[in-house]
Amino acid sequence: MTVVRVEQKVLNENQRIAIDLRRRFQEHQILCLNLISSPGSGKTTLLESTLAAFRPEERIAVLTGDLQTENDARRLMRYGFPVQQIVTGGVCHLDGKMIDRALEKWSLENIDVLFIENVGNLVCPSSYDLGEEAKIVLLSVTEGEDKPLKYPSIFHKSSLLILTKVDLLPYVPFDIEAAKANARQVNPDIEILEVSCATGKGLEEWRAWLGKRRAKQQSAAQYPSPRAQ
Amino acid sequence: MTVVRVEQKVLNENQRIAIDLRRRFQEHQILCLNLISSPGSGKTTLLESTLAAFRPEERIAVLTGDLQTENDARRLMRYGFPVQQIVTGGVCHLDGKMIDRALEKWSLENIDVLFIENVGNLVCPSSYDLGEEAKIVLLSVTEGEDKPLKYPSIFHKSSLLILTKVDLLPYVPFDIEAAKANARQVNPDIEILEVSCATGKGLEEWRAWLGKRRAKQQSAAQYPSPRAQ
Repeated sequence: MTVVRVEQKVLNENQRIAIDLRRRFQEHQILCLNLISSPGSGKTTLLESTLAAFRPEERIAVLTGDLQTENDARRLMRYGFPVQQIVTGGVCHLDGKMIDRALEKWSLENIDVLFIENVGNLVCPSSYDLGEEAKIVLLSVTEGEDKPLKYPSIFHKSSLLILTKVDLLPYVPFDIEAAKANARQVNPDIEILEVSCATGKGLEEWRAWLGKRRAKQQSAAQYPSPRAQ
Repeated sequence: MTVVRVEQKVLNENQRIAIDLRRRFQEHQILCLNLISSPGSGKTTLLESTLAAFRPEERIAVLTGDLQTENDARRLMRYGFPVQQIVTGGVCHLDGKMIDRALEKWSLENIDVLFIENVGNLVCPSSYDLGEEAKIVLLSVTEGEDKPLKYPSIFHKSSLLILTKVDLLPYVPFDIEAAKANARQVNPDIEILEVSCATGKGLEEWRAWLGKRRAKQQSAAQYPSPRAQ
């Protein structure tokens, strides 16, 4: 008997869907960002500040995930951009199928930036590729500077760490330089921003980061590398 | 053909282990408490304050779970009571088998109160019974009063909600009465304490709660209900 080894990597269902989502996002030049953090680190609040600063004609959309309630979608809809709540009904993360289904209701031609606010959970969402261009992890200064070492996977996979609620630094025992060092220990390439939506600190740098990523994506679409042909 | 319906509930492996753990905890009159919260809500800090107040001769033990690092065990060992770190290596919750294995290193005869500090995750740990007498959910006032509605399972299953970091209330937009109402909406029987380990507020009530539960357990062991015979 001849045994033929099949060396091709077996992709699971989520990976297959994520590859298709990524292809469609690139085809439509959509910058898709996947925001991940513990519950209550300020994902929705950051998105509120972010949406408030976009001009009404900009083509921004938000998918927001929660186990239960449509509270976040209600908060975000006030800014006039399309928002959909994904209620997972107890599932601890968003997966590619949920994103795919939600996007059926929208025309991708009309979207330039898609924010995905994941379920509040610093563990499980890191295992599910949603076809995003980048993962962004949020860590509030009330949570402790040791979190990148205790939950390394998401810090390892994220392009950007946003340290939120920095206005609370005077009232909490949080060593911000240790937090940054811990994040860089698990991911030397991670970019880091310090933000407070209460005072506005760091929001300009966050918008600059978004602008840079949009420019980078447009440039990649205009001058694709030969391998992508 | 005669079809015989087997109505007996099929237990999964974790449930079987949890039933055995619970039987052993009751046999040895151990009060086992399973502490669950988001990362950074203050489980380890509460345990530090709790251990510091026990007399050295009290028979207290702690199992503390994390994806990575032994930081928490190191923090808790300073109080002189037996502590074991369970490193899950990426698993998002503790399960019965992990508890069972850790307890092999200890004699249950020497333990009166066992604290289990779960992995920081407000979602998945709620699905895994560890044989505990009660689940305790912690929610810090920096996380927002909507969390009981967005993560109902753990609030529904917990006997006690500890609102932590209440010293930060002047600096955060947290409606504590709304938080309590939301918790009672998903669990009308939940008890609620307000605690700050920074100022000591509420720690006396927390110790009184522990005393009450220990007394209740000892009384149940002394006067078991007829059905338990």
